[in-house]
Amino acid sequence: MTRPLSVAVAGLGTVGGGLLRLLRDNADVVTARAGRPIAVTAVSARDRSRDRGVPLTGLRWYDDPVALAADEADVVVELIGGSEGPGRALVQAALAAGKPVVTANKALLAVHGAELAAAAERAGVPLAFEAAVAGGIPVIKALREGLAGNRITRVAGILNGTCNYILTVMRERGREFAEVLAEAQKLGYAESDPAFDIDGIDAAHKLAILAALAFGRPVAFDAVHVEGIRHVSALDIGFATELGYRIKLLGIARRTEAGIEARVHPCMVPQAAPIARVDGVFNAVVAEGDFVGRVMLEGRGAGAGPTASAVVADLIDIARGRSTPVWGAASGALTDAPSVPIAAHVGAYYLRLMVVDRPGVIADVTAELRDQGISLESMLQRGRSPGEVVPVVLVTHETREAAMRAALARIGALDAVLEDPAVIRIEPA
Amino acid sequence: MTRPLSVAVAGLGTVGGGLLRLLRDNADVVTARAGRPIAVTAVSARDRSRDRGVPLTGLRWYDDPVALAADEADVVVELIGGSEGPGRALVQAALAAGKPVVTANKALLAVHGAELAAAAERAGVPLAFEAAVAGGIPVIKALREGLAGNRITRVAGILNGTCNYILTVMRERGREFAEVLAEAQKLGYAESDPAFDIDGIDAAHKLAILAALAFGRPVAFDAVHVEGIRHVSALDIGFATELGYRIKLLGIARRTEAGIEARVHPCMVPQAAPIARVDGVFNAVVAEGDFVGRVMLEGRGAGAGPTASAVVADLIDIARGRSTPVWGAASGALTDAPSVPIAAHVGAYYLRLMVVDRPGVIADVTAELRDQGISLESMLQRGRSPGEVVPVVLVTHETREAAMRAALARIGALDAVLEDPAVIRIEPA
Repeated sequence: MTRPLSVAVAGLGTVGGGLLRLLRDNADVVTARAGRPIAVTAVSARDRSRDRGVPLTGLRWYDDPVALAADEADVVVELIGGSEGPGRALVQAALAAGKPVVTANKALLAVHGAELAAAAERAGVPLAFEAAVAGGIPVIKALREGLAGNRITRVAGILNGTCNYILTVMRERGREFAEVLAEAQKLGYAESDPAFDIDGIDAAHKLAILAALAFGRPVAFDAVHVEGIRHVSALDIGFATELGYRIKLLGIARRTEAGIEARVHPCMVPQAAPIARVDGVFNAVVAEGDFVGRVMLEGRGAGAGPTASAVVADLIDIARGRSTPVWGAASGALTDAPSVPIAAHVGAYYLRLMVVDRPGVIADVTAELRDQGISLESMLQRGRSPGEVVPVVLVTHETREAAMRAALARIGALDAVLEDPAVIRIEPA
Repeated sequence: MTRPLSVAVAGLGTVGGGLLRLLRDNADVVTARAGRPIAVTAVSARDRSRDRGVPLTGLRWYDDPVALAADEADVVVELIGGSEGPGRALVQAALAAGKPVVTANKALLAVHGAELAAAAERAGVPLAFEAAVAGGIPVIKALREGLAGNRITRVAGILNGTCNYILTVMRERGREFAEVLAEAQKLGYAESDPAFDIDGIDAAHKLAILAALAFGRPVAFDAVHVEGIRHVSALDIGFATELGYRIKLLGIARRTEAGIEARVHPCMVPQAAPIARVDGVFNAVVAEGDFVGRVMLEGRGAGAGPTASAVVADLIDIARGRSTPVWGAASGALTDAPSVPIAAHVGAYYLRLMVVDRPGVIADVTAELRDQGISLESMLQRGRSPGEVVPVVLVTHETREAAMRAALARIGALDAVLEDPAVIRIEPA
């Protein structure tokens, strides 16, 4: 038995507590797989007195998390979060001190990942972040190691459990977004300030990380097009079902001839697609490689247990001396494939208008689409109510986003169209 | 750039050809992720003249695969297959010569895995086998590294694409096993000698490997209970659908209070279970860990591309110096959890009898079940045909396999029961 791997943990919230419990409850399993014990020896957290289910006696306590970088522990685990502030400062300090770092911080990796990778390379130490994407599902390892022989053409995923839970409940119970969000907050499935989740930022951080790994290029959070789920309505979810789709908030990164497209937005996906059936708080990631074909990974994307599982996997890798460059290849070996703006996106669209039911309206709407070269796959109108406001649904064939936006501007300006059109991109399986 | 990793490949069939093509087509990606080029420098195959889509000029050729162990290449890749013979001899010789080995050979690992792990440990070199289970899906890496912090309670999977394809077509087209098998053979989805696949042996090899990794104990192929799909009938597939199930050939390994249960057999799984929807040649593996919860991985389980993808992932690990003990922990750190015989299995059962439709038959059958302490959840009988032979379906509550077998022996002996009862174990999601 070699000597234990000693660990300094910053942040003892839900995940930190889970980590302490896992290392205690599964000490035998972890020791066997790591080849030596893994022991937390130092911690930093805001509240010293809070009960975490595991006694902290005997551990070195630091009020300032950044001071952990100078502790004698072998590895620093950063569970503070946030792209700026003490989490970032600690990771920078630890790497500068030549200490391996394990973090669950997706915002930090998405925003400052290139700079941190350079720091890790300079120091020759691992910076591991399995817990940053999709909780306990080993997607980072799968993309960076398991599928490493492939040219990845597309990676897509349900990356935010809160959004998936809300969309699932909206569909199952036919309820509106605001009601379900309020309920989710009561149940603890959504934060009291939910913007980060429901506006798609959290999913975009994760997608930026997956895209960098999949395409072997520097992480580019700013290049991700982001839309959240606030505007998804029960009406559109109903129409989606009628048309054979599910509405999911997906993060999608795709290699196109023009470069890398990366976007997070509500999508209509065919009901038969495996990802369409991933409901509730579950996450899933689909990767498509030129040799492996399509691989899907599915599981719990958040919570104390799954996230601790991912952190410990990284610690076991470090204990065994296994390491991988932060972005799968050395910084110098990354490619510089350009980012493609959303305006260049090509795909099919679902379009739902609220129109006054009177002769000529549909003709006006479809004329605007035709003028932009957009052809229709199908149209749906529920009942007839002359003079009343009724929903009209149009599904287009593949077209360019720029053309669709031009058409929408003109359609929205028509007298008979009352409300902003609802637009949802259709994503193939 | 460090010097290339040189590779000697034994066996240039479908997978070997795929490997050569991957290393040629994706040389840039592989080099970036491996940190250096990976180059095949020596090969051995039966037929020197066959066109593999990649020229073999400049490679050292060996007629005897075992001679590759003495070649100067850094790594030996064994793609010959079979638990005995030249594949085994090559792996033994390469490990004895202190050379890392990558193999796709599930039979070899399942039958001689303990001995080979000891040899790899003595030599201090990796023996990697991602390609041995579920093709390109990185399940070995997921279990051995990604979920390494968990106490795994259950691992289950669709591990044989041929069987899953046959069962899928039987259900979709309402056809019988023998017809669909013949068709699958014509299409190349089943071997001309299909026994290895359809009798469950191939799935059992893979399950033995997964169980060893999941539970951290020596691989025990002989302890796997194996049944194939020859006896699955269109009639039972129809009843399964009616009852809300799908019939799948699953490999299941489970930790019970008495020890480790490992079995391969047709199962009824609830239609709503994610694994029930994995159709055609696709494979899937579900792992349940105490911290991570349930994780499912899904993708193509065979074929040149997916298998080559897995072999290259192992080669990249070796090029980067990443390695893991063969069974996830050193041989000395494996546990000796006992194997549980199938007679001790506890679960629900589907039972389909062909009985003469006359008064008292159901009473006789249910009395035999009652006498063994088996209670019924439901019963299904299609129509009434006095004096004719009709199918009767019984679904039991949880009971012990031993009790079920005792009841079946007596039920089979009843005058009115004509044919051997069809019995299919019901597996929870």
